[in-house]
Amino acid sequence: MREDLIDLTAYFDGEKKLELLEHTPAAALGSCRKKLPKVGEDDDFYEKLIAIFRKYDIRYFFYIGGNDSMDTVAKLSEYTRGHDYDMVILGVPKTIDNDLVGTDHTPGFGSAAKYIAVTTQEIIRDCAVYKIPAVTIIEIMGRDAGWLTAASAIGRVVNGIEPDLVYLPERTFDMQAFFADVRAALEKHPNVVIAVSEGLRFADGHYVGEGTQTGAKDAFGHAYLAGTGKALELAVKAEIGCKVRSVELNLPQRCAAHLASKTDLDESVMLGKAAVNAAEEGITRQMMTMQRVSDAPYSIEYWHSDVSEIANKIRTVDDAFINEAGNHVTDACCRYLLPLIAGEAACKYEAGLPVHLIL
Amino acid sequence: MREDLIDLTAYFDGEKKLELLEHTPAAALGSCRKKLPKVGEDDDFYEKLIAIFRKYDIRYFFYIGGNDSMDTVAKLSEYTRGHDYDMVILGVPKTIDNDLVGTDHTPGFGSAAKYIAVTTQEIIRDCAVYKIPAVTIIEIMGRDAGWLTAASAIGRVVNGIEPDLVYLPERTFDMQAFFADVRAALEKHPNVVIAVSEGLRFADGHYVGEGTQTGAKDAFGHAYLAGTGKALELAVKAEIGCKVRSVELNLPQRCAAHLASKTDLDESVMLGKAAVNAAEEGITRQMMTMQRVSDAPYSIEYWHSDVSEIANKIRTVDDAFINEAGNHVTDACCRYLLPLIAGEAACKYEAGLPVHLIL
Repeated sequence: MREDLIDLTAYFDGEKKLELLEHTPAAALGSCRKKLPKVGEDDDFYEKLIAIFRKYDIRYFFYIGGNDSMDTVAKLSEYTRGHDYDMVILGVPKTIDNDLVGTDHTPGFGSAAKYIAVTTQEIIRDCAVYKIPAVTIIEIMGRDAGWLTAASAIGRVVNGIEPDLVYLPERTFDMQAFFADVRAALEKHPNVVIAVSEGLRFADGHYVGEGTQTGAKDAFGHAYLAGTGKALELAVKAEIGCKVRSVELNLPQRCAAHLASKTDLDESVMLGKAAVNAAEEGITRQMMTMQRVSDAPYSIEYWHSDVSEIANKIRTVDDAFINEAGNHVTDACCRYLLPLIAGEAACKYEAGLPVHLIL
Repeated sequence: MREDLIDLTAYFDGEKKLELLEHTPAAALGSCRKKLPKVGEDDDFYEKLIAIFRKYDIRYFFYIGGNDSMDTVAKLSEYTRGHDYDMVILGVPKTIDNDLVGTDHTPGFGSAAKYIAVTTQEIIRDCAVYKIPAVTIIEIMGRDAGWLTAASAIGRVVNGIEPDLVYLPERTFDMQAFFADVRAALEKHPNVVIAVSEGLRFADGHYVGEGTQTGAKDAFGHAYLAGTGKALELAVKAEIGCKVRSVELNLPQRCAAHLASKTDLDESVMLGKAAVNAAEEGITRQMMTMQRVSDAPYSIEYWHSDVSEIANKIRTVDDAFINEAGNHVTDACCRYLLPLIAGEAACKYEAGLPVHLIL
């Protein structure tokens, strides 16, 4: 809206920068949290937007992101239907949250899942050093969907090493049941490791970590969360009295490009190419998707689906992926996740540090 | 003392397990926090210990660890001096804290420093995505020495990318000076990244993260005990009012073996071998050390030093490594640190997860 445009064709003058871009964390283009008005509520906004598109003859609109971005794609798709401006509008999914419907998974998720799975393995080793009873709580991102938290358990189908307990936001959190679970785990061995989602809620709808929050909300009205692990650490300390600590994986789980999944990076590139191909064929008002053809050998096909059927829906973890007690994931969940973390990114290092692309 | 012995010769039946051990985080042998009595204060203890040594004809004692472990080595060295038991006693340094005197650096430090340096680069990229004023505070381990926190700035001498401000425990922390520093940094660009040591203290000796009166309570009504990063996050939010968040690097900084420094791993193996060679020569009551011969090309010699001169001393960050304002490190500091993070560990992966050795 500020006509702040970048000529990427001029910038990417060869393969080398594109390769670096693959291994650069976060969004090289920057990002925005602009929420588009509902179609029909602010025609001025859309008229200005279309005028800018017209001025630069912008006829292909690719919008990369998660749920909020698909909301933008859906609104623009809806507005342009009733107006005289010919444009291809495509959503290209990219979110570590894996919470978009219509696609087997989302680019970005596999790398975050790999970071979480690997880091959990390392934390379990770290915790195994002492023999005194101790509880370690790992807090993982995912406000509404537990996919990232579930990834902490992937080790089960590789080497049998996984957290003792895993709590997803898809199940109501009950503190007394949690204490009973922790006590039962401590009976089995002294070093108990627990993975929890930042989005855990009690039956009354309150977030477990809410008490430690300021009540701040982002532009989309979502409450900021951060204190679930800390809240549970204090609760276990008070109730059970053993050594307890909490580890919030925090920003590194979404930006640790040095540990990206090769499968995820390859698929991200393929999905981008599929989007360009679809645009050339005149496909519009769709989100690009990935359909799983088979688990073993793992195989994916790229397709697309009506964005209005995708935006503002949340794909939570399947019921079949959560155990009956609601305190762990199932083997089927681990088998779904496993191929997504396969392969290691070939990061370029200079003097011990990864090389990133800065636009 | 429980005669809980492991036959490592039988266990390590080839090179393969040793290679896996190199890439396994934490202490495969386990650890203990047993503090030995002062020599002369509890002869019973030492007599029992020597009796066990005698029973199994244990004549070589290698003790791996940091400051507390060297205290054990020093006490045992002292006790055996006055008693008829012939034994080689050697301390083998291993601590991410890098706070032992008499050695250029300690095995373990380079890998933790690399994790911190790389993760800081990634967090800086993550923070660059938005243009609104935001402060991100990274809390790093090191209660008494700021070596690990200093490692966040290594990027300066590689690609020019580093935190805006770095606070080490070697300098008294002043909240008003800190606010002035943050405001000045926000004048320069919107995304301010700050590295702080967990061990920061005010002039009155209190830790910054201790007993901060934030008034925040968790879901259970407990006062929220903030860490250093969290305390500073709340302070900046209250004083400056911009977007603020804190990231505690926590356990991963000491167990992220997937991102180990090759230099560190190689040196750890070499130092272990040097300890065995020294023992064969009858060197005793010493800690193995590394002496830097040159920075460029980087070169190290292995030596040893009287453990009684090392135990219970803390090597803090050199004055020449901290800037005058006490809010950053110097180029000399970065040049000291740089060779220690060189090279990437060739971790073995299976199905996307690193393979660890479990004894």
